[in-house]
Amino acid sequence: MNRLSTIAVTAPELIVAATLAVETRGEGFVEITPDIKDFIAVAGAGDGVVLLFIRHTSASLVIQENADPDVRTDLSTALNRLAPAAAGWIHDTEGPDDMPAHVKTMLIGVSLHIPVRQGILELGTWQGVYVAEHRAQPHRRDVVLRYIGGRRRGA
Amino acid sequence: MNRLSTIAVTAPELIVAATLAVETRGEGFVEITPDIKDFIAVAGAGDGVVLLFIRHTSASLVIQENADPDVRTDLSTALNRLAPAAAGWIHDTEGPDDMPAHVKTMLIGVSLHIPVRQGILELGTWQGVYVAEHRAQPHRRDVVLRYIGGRRRGA
Amino acid sequence: MNRLSTIAVTAPELIVAATLAVETRGEGFVEITPDIKDFIAVAGAGDGVVLLFIRHTSASLVIQENADPDVRTDLSTALNRLAPAAAGWIHDTEGPDDMPAHVKTMLIGVSLHIPVRQGILELGTWQGVYVAEHRAQPHRRDVVLRYIGGRRRGA
Repeated sequence: MNRLSTIAVTAPELIVAATLAVETRGEGFVEITPDIKDFIAVAGAGDGVVLLFIRHTSASLVIQENADPDVRTDLSTALNRLAPAAAGWIHDTEGPDDMPAHVKTMLIGVSLHIPVRQGILELGTWQGVYVAEHRAQPHRRDVVLRYIGGRRRGA
Repeated sequence: MNRLSTIAVTAPELIVAATLAVETRGEGFVEITPDIKDFIAVAGAGDGVVLLFIRHTSASLVIQENADPDVRTDLSTALNRLAPAAAGWIHDTEGPDDMPAHVKTMLIGVSLHIPVRQGILELGTWQGVYVAEHRAQPHRRDVVLRYIGGRRRGA
Repeated sequence: MNRLSTIAVTAPELIVAATLAVETRGEGFVEITPDIKDFIAVAGAGDGVVLLFIRHTSASLVIQENADPDVRTDLSTALNRLAPAAAGWIHDTEGPDDMPAHVKTMLIGVSLHIPVRQGILELGTWQGVYVAEHRAQPHRRDVVLRYIGGRRRGA
């Protein structure tokens, strides 16, 4: 049986906007969990959600295990099997890593949200938030942030 | 030609927070549509959105066909082809089903929203909301819920 | 180093609801970026987010490159490799393109959001918003829209 907790009700008070600039190091995952925590602290967030959006078509946002770095290595391996460089792509003018990067971005996605409760991100114990860079070279990636919700009380 | 309907405007009045605990039975899909309907009823939701977030790295949230159960069987088959257990994963200390579960979670995702109109979930006729368990064993999975929107009128 | 911008704070003032009806031409991508821009203009949106939800299990929402149409051709090729028609699906009563369409929908997803700042969609330069039709035949697809945020100032 599924069980629903009691509910907590507050009033919407804040829309907070910011942008996070992330420097990637080429293909792989860059953790941004501390940056999102900084954002909701500065925003004075209480109960609500933080929404993240990456403004690119060859990099994604993903929530994944933050403990064993081997997991991220295997995730890259999986992505390269699902979207290999040598697959006869028509669109190849931007290099062999470009079209696979678009496919990976389509599969993983560019938008997600994380709930916030009493000013704390409600991530699971093993969850970290990452920018997944799918191009071979380092890039600057912009992640647009919105907090929607109530203010933090008694802070 | 695409056609945009007339718009309906209301004021944001409610941020409602809750958590749904879901007991899975090992690999497969557990429907939570009735639980989400219960939540928006208890929340007194009118026009807005309900946002769902699963606090795990080896289980996902997915909206899929709720009619023929063969669809869910085929979806599991597809996922096991895309992320097979025997694929030379480096991260294997938690069992052969663990790394495939992370890959599936990355592909499907852990956050989504459903619009609510006059207190009703705006799901399509054939859409159901599911927790997708990617581990072989049963687990308790926590789904964090937020309703953001106006109150239900005349209820 | 990641860098967080200064924040901009406004009050939640609007929940705006509408539905966009999209006529697809069979398998492929239909751009809806202009329709979303129309919606946020009519809604009088300022700072906030627009949330999109497609009410179907064989069509998805995706944000992808809007420049070279070859990219969309390659994305279709990639999806057909990941979810081929001839793959021994159990669920085949609705035609050979139906079960692959469900798999593609699971991978890409049916819900996303785009941030809005001072009445402008914060899409990246090369990002367009698309309905991805996964069935072979044309369909009418309903996309449910919500704007949550503040009003546009000085308009």
